[in-house]
Amino acid sequence: MPLKCQPFTPQQGQTYLHRLQQGRPLVHCLTNDVVQNFTANILLAIGASPAMVTAQEEIAYFVPICQALLINIGTVTHTQAESMRLAVKTAQHTGVPWVLDPVAVSAALPFRTQLAQELLTQNPTVIRGNAAEIRYLSGENITARGADSLENSASALPAAVTLAQTYTTCVAVTGQVDYVTDGQLTYAIPGGSPLLPRITGTGCALSALVAACLSATVSPLQAAATACLIMKHAAERADQAQGTGTFAVSLIDQLSHFAF
Amino acid sequence: MPLKCQPFTPQQGQTYLHRLQQGRPLVHCLTNDVVQNFTANILLAIGASPAMVTAQEEIAYFVPICQALLINIGTVTHTQAESMRLAVKTAQHTGVPWVLDPVAVSAALPFRTQLAQELLTQNPTVIRGNAAEIRYLSGENITARGADSLENSASALPAAVTLAQTYTTCVAVTGQVDYVTDGQLTYAIPGGSPLLPRITGTGCALSALVAACLSATVSPLQAAATACLIMKHAAERADQAQGTGTFAVSLIDQLSHFAF
Amino acid sequence: MPLKCQPFTPQQGQTYLHRLQQGRPLVHCLTNDVVQNFTANILLAIGASPAMVTAQEEIAYFVPICQALLINIGTVTHTQAESMRLAVKTAQHTGVPWVLDPVAVSAALPFRTQLAQELLTQNPTVIRGNAAEIRYLSGENITARGADSLENSASALPAAVTLAQTYTTCVAVTGQVDYVTDGQLTYAIPGGSPLLPRITGTGCALSALVAACLSATVSPLQAAATACLIMKHAAERADQAQGTGTFAVSLIDQLSHFAF
Repeated sequence: MPLKCQPFTPQQGQTYLHRLQQGRPLVHCLTNDVVQNFTANILLAIGASPAMVTAQEEIAYFVPICQALLINIGTVTHTQAESMRLAVKTAQHTGVPWVLDPVAVSAALPFRTQLAQELLTQNPTVIRGNAAEIRYLSGENITARGADSLENSASALPAAVTLAQTYTTCVAVTGQVDYVTDGQLTYAIPGGSPLLPRITGTGCALSALVAACLSATVSPLQAAATACLIMKHAAERADQAQGTGTFAVSLIDQLSHFAF
Repeated sequence: MPLKCQPFTPQQGQTYLHRLQQGRPLVHCLTNDVVQNFTANILLAIGASPAMVTAQEEIAYFVPICQALLINIGTVTHTQAESMRLAVKTAQHTGVPWVLDPVAVSAALPFRTQLAQELLTQNPTVIRGNAAEIRYLSGENITARGADSLENSASALPAAVTLAQTYTTCVAVTGQVDYVTDGQLTYAIPGGSPLLPRITGTGCALSALVAACLSATVSPLQAAATACLIMKHAAERADQAQGTGTFAVSLIDQLSHFAF
Repeated sequence: MPLKCQPFTPQQGQTYLHRLQQGRPLVHCLTNDVVQNFTANILLAIGASPAMVTAQEEIAYFVPICQALLINIGTVTHTQAESMRLAVKTAQHTGVPWVLDPVAVSAALPFRTQLAQELLTQNPTVIRGNAAEIRYLSGENITARGADSLENSASALPAAVTLAQTYTTCVAVTGQVDYVTDGQLTYAIPGGSPLLPRITGTGCALSALVAACLSATVSPLQAAATACLIMKHAAERADQAQGTGTFAVSLIDQLSHFAF
């Protein structure tokens, strides 16, 4: 399958970013324990309003008043899986767009993998993952682990296109180059920093940014591309850090006064 | 109702801060998932000892040896609500002062709102919230959401006074100006930084600071005012940050060598 | 009992650090809610791969593919205790080395203390704690709390040796001087920074570093000593910070380009 990749320009992104900042979208995050604080600060920095509401008793009330929902299965437990199912069902019924971040789906982690495969059939607006996750989710039988599989996003582009076409969704496979595809049109977004994978939660926070951008455009493809481009540019500007600790702080700084 | 607002002076605060730092109070925090690390570092910075003990099996043993308890319902679940009920009951029986932070109480989140209303009747020593939370808790029928309602603390001053009088407690409603009232006397504490609401957990951490200060004075009103004044001053000193990431780090820095 | 303490040299540590960075060990962390992000970033900084998988459904699949396991009971609940028991059992059956961090074991916290005592009999590869924890775990009847007991690691050296001999394990008792002993040989590792106990999670993160180092040497004693020496050196280099907020960030920076 010949794939046509287009660049996504800052001019395109700027329009959506401006709308996001005007709208201050409420983004409901059901995300993992490791990245809650970082994700909230990334969303606040770009101008969105994060909300981490997890109780099953509150999900059905809260999802409908949000502009977007994030489901990240990084540290999912049985109880949290129930909250996620309910949140997704509610989002579907009330038209709230939602992002699936299938953290670490693999043969080694069957519980989350089954959950991700189940949620995949519930019409996610965007799926954002690394190469290994997107390839596994699309049905490839991969077993290798390591930095190569995480970062080599190009290797997962065919899988991303297949996944997008099969489930009529938008897939962002991120790494050295971010690829965002709806199965027809694909944007390639290079750049960023080698420090991005050296701090925890940059992928998770990017998925939250995608959710925030969904409120600012009618096109999931444009939303995902905008979020990826914002993160790539912010990471480049934060790159002069003295180490990974400073880089994480500087990344939030850069997002807090970001303009293309 | 005419409200008399007095300033709270650094001279008043310095005495209590000194006592806090001499006493190194153990502050038991039942708080939300997003701000655990930030809250612990804020407490350590000012000279208190944070402890996040959540298991129901440990609550009744641990609360009595603490100098103060914080209950923050930001990401409360059914299980955690049980721990909170037990912690509050134990605190009441053993004379441990406690702070209620009713995060996001509203019509949209009935589970936590019912919990907050229940705990409100269990003699909280101090309640700390933003304008929307304090107004909703006092019985006002508000539905609006947004930065205005969060920051416009003056709009909630009548509600704070009513709440303090009704429940014979002390209420801190914080925002551009922090107001602390016991229903008779009210302190108004201006200052701070516009960056405070742009990072997650500054309100939650302030509630923890209030708890820490409760060990250093016999007056909940003075304790809450001291905590608010410390946070306002520290935020002003951290304000020259290059963005919100650096601001969060600098806020901890300022608290770690704070003196009025 | 006369104790022979030897220094542990940077030359010894450098060899193991190099192996760790070549191997990029996957370290499974069942750790407390407060330090998840900090622990993950510390592990990433030094070159390891953190994984926080908590669901009981995934433990038995995931532990065997990891190079090391960390059990930290800082905010353990009934449910998490079950995951920890299963993880330790799996680690034993599959030969995965594991570290026990018995956070806050004491008479005041019987639930976690019973759990720690139970896990102690399951052949931990290394136990890492502060003086109060190691003394309590070895059977001393201590009740005092405070900075002194936390930092005065020398007071716990006899307890550490007893514990190591009784359970045929390696014990690291850390503080102003870190002592690492297998009951026969003891390394004394001075240095570090007075700021280390003033931020949350440095002990917890050190336990994770010990786990990472276990993959790089056949000797638990050498692994624990390497981790302690890395943390001491990194803390010294981060010591010029403007406060505890900057210190935490700088500590990660220093680890992210660390060489002895």
